[in-house]
Amino acid sequence: MIIQLALDRMTIAEAIEVAELAEPYVDWIEVGTSLIKEFGMASVRELRGRFPTHKIVADVKTFDNAAYEFSRCFESGADIATVMGAAPAVTIDVCLETAREFGTDVMIDLLNVPPTGIEALATLGEAIVCAHLSKDQQESSGGQGARVDLPLGLFSGDRSARPRLAVAGGITAESLEDLTLMRPDILIVGSAITGAGDPAAAARAMRGAADEWRERVRS
Amino acid sequence: MIIQLALDRMTIAEAIEVAELAEPYVDWIEVGTSLIKEFGMASVRELRGRFPTHKIVADVKTFDNAAYEFSRCFESGADIATVMGAAPAVTIDVCLETAREFGTDVMIDLLNVPPTGIEALATLGEAIVCAHLSKDQQESSGGQGARVDLPLGLFSGDRSARPRLAVAGGITAESLEDLTLMRPDILIVGSAITGAGDPAAAARAMRGAADEWRERVRS
Repeated sequence: MIIQLALDRMTIAEAIEVAELAEPYVDWIEVGTSLIKEFGMASVRELRGRFPTHKIVADVKTFDNAAYEFSRCFESGADIATVMGAAPAVTIDVCLETAREFGTDVMIDLLNVPPTGIEALATLGEAIVCAHLSKDQQESSGGQGARVDLPLGLFSGDRSARPRLAVAGGITAESLEDLTLMRPDILIVGSAITGAGDPAAAARAMRGAADEWRERVRS
Repeated sequence: MIIQLALDRMTIAEAIEVAELAEPYVDWIEVGTSLIKEFGMASVRELRGRFPTHKIVADVKTFDNAAYEFSRCFESGADIATVMGAAPAVTIDVCLETAREFGTDVMIDLLNVPPTGIEALATLGEAIVCAHLSKDQQESSGGQGARVDLPLGLFSGDRSARPRLAVAGGITAESLEDLTLMRPDILIVGSAITGAGDPAAAARAMRGAADEWRERVRS
């Protein structure tokens, strides 16, 4: 079970500080959209430099100008960059091409993609797709919104022929049970760790809960 | 006729340099998505500082976390910020609310929004909507792609009851005729000016062509 630590709504220095506390318990470190839009590619470079062995995810949420944006992310040290599944198909294609050139990965964010669009994206076995309950949706619904109307059949069966599945948005150690049917490969966790009084303890608890849950779901 | 100069795929210093050449002939200055994602809010602050009397548009392409992203743009000096029309409705609502608080404006980018979504957005009379042929679409089609399948009836009739209409993507002095049926309020022009050997001359020519075309379309 991969845990991706999402760093958002803070300075680069604060992001490094909380990631230093959590890093023994997480696998991937995400430079959140808010860091990229506030501080630019410096945020990716600095996290990359401080955490040379973790995969770095640039949540750049590309919607156009894909070759330029993805190249900047990968040149800045990202291993994975994100594109919106709601973007034109040509943009997603260019993201996949650019990642192939760099030997890196693409995460496709399913936020607000209609079910027919999700079916098309589910054929892209080389990508990671992310079922995403957005911050704005969480805040407007008190955290009770539907993550995404995911056609779950697309993600069962032969796991080598379908994209890896990430889930994001309001995930806590206590809410893992809600994800059991989705059988995600990657858990994206933000404020449950970064907003905790003791981020190291919160990350350790998430690691334990995720591993225990995964073993139980498998058996 | 408002001309919005879009600054993309360059450094902040280059953006200031080309805007200094073009500014007598343009109305609004757009800090492009590529500048924001590469250099962060410093790009908005520096353009704002150098051009205190032009409206500054932050093409931040918000898809989530709307209050945070829009507040950062407006605090950095933007008069207008952009949100993707393909984003969840709650995100667009929060953008409109945040702009009301700051006394600023919202531009909704119609890129890849289905026709039913466009109809809903066309009721937001306080917003600006942007019919956008994306860079990736232009490059994949040799510039011949459809801008957007815009239900033009939504933008005729009482102009006070519908959003102002901007058009973007591959606009040149020669291609204005193609926009006649749309009757846009705002022309967003990027590489036709920024990529010209003489950006001042290109901006002057665009100004002349736009004003002449508008007079002709009206009569």
